[in-house]
Amino acid sequence: MITPILFRLHRVCSILLAMLLCSVCMSRVAAQTSDSVFIRRLADEILLRSTAYENLRVLTKQIGPRLAGSTGMVKAELWGVAAMQRAGADCTWKQQCLVPHWVRGGQDQARAVINGKSNTLDVVALGNSIGTGPTELMAPVMEVRSFEELQQRQQEVKGKIVFYNYPFNSTMVRTFQAYGDANKFRGQGPSQAARYGALGVVVRSMSHSTDNHPHTGSTRYDSLYNKIPAVAIGLQDADRLSGWIAQSFAQATPQGSTQASPQSDVQVGLRTLGHFLPDTIGHNVIGELRGTVFPNEIITVGGHLDSWDNCEGAHDDGAGCVQTIEILRAFKAMGYAPQRTIRFVLFANEENGLRGGTKYAEEAKRNGEKHVFALESDAGGFTPRALGFTVSDMQFQKIMQWQPLIAPYGCSEFARGGGGADIGPLNRLFNTPVAGLQPDSQRYFDYHHARSDVFEAVNKRELELGAVNMAALIYLIDRYGL
Amino acid sequence: MITPILFRLHRVCSILLAMLLCSVCMSRVAAQTSDSVFIRRLADEILLRSTAYENLRVLTKQIGPRLAGSTGMVKAELWGVAAMQRAGADCTWKQQCLVPHWVRGGQDQARAVINGKSNTLDVVALGNSIGTGPTELMAPVMEVRSFEELQQRQQEVKGKIVFYNYPFNSTMVRTFQAYGDANKFRGQGPSQAARYGALGVVVRSMSHSTDNHPHTGSTRYDSLYNKIPAVAIGLQDADRLSGWIAQSFAQATPQGSTQASPQSDVQVGLRTLGHFLPDTIGHNVIGELRGTVFPNEIITVGGHLDSWDNCEGAHDDGAGCVQTIEILRAFKAMGYAPQRTIRFVLFANEENGLRGGTKYAEEAKRNGEKHVFALESDAGGFTPRALGFTVSDMQFQKIMQWQPLIAPYGCSEFARGGGGADIGPLNRLFNTPVAGLQPDSQRYFDYHHARSDVFEAVNKRELELGAVNMAALIYLIDRYGL
Repeated sequence: MITPILFRLHRVCSILLAMLLCSVCMSRVAAQTSDSVFIRRLADEILLRSTAYENLRVLTKQIGPRLAGSTGMVKAELWGVAAMQRAGADCTWKQQCLVPHWVRGGQDQARAVINGKSNTLDVVALGNSIGTGPTELMAPVMEVRSFEELQQRQQEVKGKIVFYNYPFNSTMVRTFQAYGDANKFRGQGPSQAARYGALGVVVRSMSHSTDNHPHTGSTRYDSLYNKIPAVAIGLQDADRLSGWIAQSFAQATPQGSTQASPQSDVQVGLRTLGHFLPDTIGHNVIGELRGTVFPNEIITVGGHLDSWDNCEGAHDDGAGCVQTIEILRAFKAMGYAPQRTIRFVLFANEENGLRGGTKYAEEAKRNGEKHVFALESDAGGFTPRALGFTVSDMQFQKIMQWQPLIAPYGCSEFARGGGGADIGPLNRLFNTPVAGLQPDSQRYFDYHHARSDVFEAVNKRELELGAVNMAALIYLIDRYGL
Repeated sequence: MITPILFRLHRVCSILLAMLLCSVCMSRVAAQTSDSVFIRRLADEILLRSTAYENLRVLTKQIGPRLAGSTGMVKAELWGVAAMQRAGADCTWKQQCLVPHWVRGGQDQARAVINGKSNTLDVVALGNSIGTGPTELMAPVMEVRSFEELQQRQQEVKGKIVFYNYPFNSTMVRTFQAYGDANKFRGQGPSQAARYGALGVVVRSMSHSTDNHPHTGSTRYDSLYNKIPAVAIGLQDADRLSGWIAQSFAQATPQGSTQASPQSDVQVGLRTLGHFLPDTIGHNVIGELRGTVFPNEIITVGGHLDSWDNCEGAHDDGAGCVQTIEILRAFKAMGYAPQRTIRFVLFANEENGLRGGTKYAEEAKRNGEKHVFALESDAGGFTPRALGFTVSDMQFQKIMQWQPLIAPYGCSEFARGGGGADIGPLNRLFNTPVAGLQPDSQRYFDYHHARSDVFEAVNKRELELGAVNMAALIYLIDRYGL
């Protein structure tokens, strides 16, 4: 009799197990369905009633450039608080931090002089660079393609203006890779040249645009060497300058000559007026939706409010700011009460100090906050393609289950690695899982840090779709945690 | 003794089988590696030395609009032959076909008259539409949102100008879906309105751009009804016109009024001069690389050379033409001798007749050609995202193995369905497998058939990346067949 009883028990167990599995499956399907319905509504809310584009217009056209320490920054902070309030934040505040205060000091000027003939060059002083002062710095120019070449030709450097003419690598399909490859010349180029006695530096802009706008960005002086003036030059002018130098060499080196290092007689004149004023006060602008179930678990979503002074900062990073506010607006408009606390943050001073992001993490530590996730949009307001995650393997497994829910809105790729400069400190301090929106990158460096980064360069729909993908991810993190 | 022998035989067989599988695997890995190396070289060739952008500049800026029958068409054909020759075609020829010859006849004009005040409207006559003639057609306007509404209010239609104000659906993430949803009003709207006695038609442009440029495109008259003039109107003017009509209704319908269908007193005046001239001669422009192993197996890659007359046709479809030529140039520059014959085709008359694509398939049939594959680019020169295939299940399985080889260059999605208008006849006549490049679609309908579709709207790098993805696919089809 025992065997039949065991057999029946086994059957009953099997049926119970099957029912349990089935119910787990069905509840998961039901959850996926209700999530997909919610995300569809969220997308419709944003695609039909977004204020992101109009917010961007006001931020770029009425406020404009907003480098840390500038009056634009102060106006932008006031605008940010008001925009967060209009979007429906439960509360808003400004989080104070000290920010560097670099000023351009006037119009950057440069020219190339060849056989006494002067040719204007389109340049922009690098951020944080010191100026030449009102007297033009004029010196022979020396073109190099790499730090290795600079080192090999170090005997020639003294008294020269070094021209780093390293092309942005167009064979790198993902343009951020080309940026990573080239931006050492902007960051370290001035000090590396000063090390061998250069008087100034001209850097080829990090871009493969077809125009001639020069692209600025931070340089970092090494305290071991003299600080020397440094500018970025537009691509067409870089090619012209390089052509003049080559021509001058050809003339200086008649056929059959064995001279090892002929001199180019091209001179470059620079006049820049950049300098630092004392650090001043800036703010992260924060809006919050208070969590209804786990109010102490904080999700952060943001972009940075500051921009370079030579542009409207529409893609970098007005887009990220208005997308952040748009997610807040859409959640409120739909009556969505998040389980966790969501912080919408417009960070101060990403461009030349990262003081905003650093302060945000420090304050979180001081207040014993629990930061469960952070998302940043700081790669332009272009059509969304991917989300990049710096998370654990287990967290990534969980996140990958959501990919089918978000893919229909553009981010069909979920990748390992990614985040944002401003949320980096959160990740480093608390190991907070972070992610970054990765829009299509092909046009980003056409505009990045150049005067062409204006409102008109942003497409309304691409901007909104970025917000849709970000909002969907924030919703899923809020609902299921990580 | 039999068992050990069988056992040994079994072991020997197992080892042989394992070696065979291993060698198949390794040769497949080796093939994938050599393919990935070739595709990387192909990409570098295009990204470093492409002439696509310069070709597009000449086609759009020096030739410009090139509707079938126009002098622009003739110039474009000559340009196309020369460009194919420069790119290195083994041979080039023009394939003659009869094309329709619709002309706009002059500047389209429209105005709305409200209480005697005239307001200019930005319109463009629909392609193939008949004109009002030199005398303005002035009539009361009637706004509808659907064919259902038109039918319900059919009593009101007689003597009116019908205004189809159906918005482009911005909640459809893929914009071609919104286009498919809305373009019935352009295609069938005039005849549907004429059926109930309308005198003319105004159609809201199929776009969600933020500007006011009207977007033309073919209309199709139903021979059962009168042909009436028809224009497309810019989005801002569509909203203004709709607002005036609503306001006029409000004034005409005092509170408490029970009048069922009050009349708007907004009148619209149209003056258009479109008409057909007799059919004329056009040509498909064809360049060929002759196959070295299977010369009778033909692979076609192309775009269409004609454009609407109101624009430079940069995205539609100058981009597809110069990408096609670029693939030819890159193959030749790399010394690639294809196994199969590759035809590079600039099709005539896609926009208002499809006579080029039709002729190409007819000639293929007449000559007993074997067409093994065709690829078209006619969705704009934007960043590549997907390739769409109209192929059998087995063919798609084979194609999917190539996805990892192409994805790094942008087309990470391989989808079922897709092709192109011009290669449609090949598919219908021979069941030729066809595919279409599917670039990101968000900005396509900002420019489509509008005066804003100019060279400046195309990004050099996005255009080139499209060519890279197409070239990679053509290479794999050539190497492995389908």
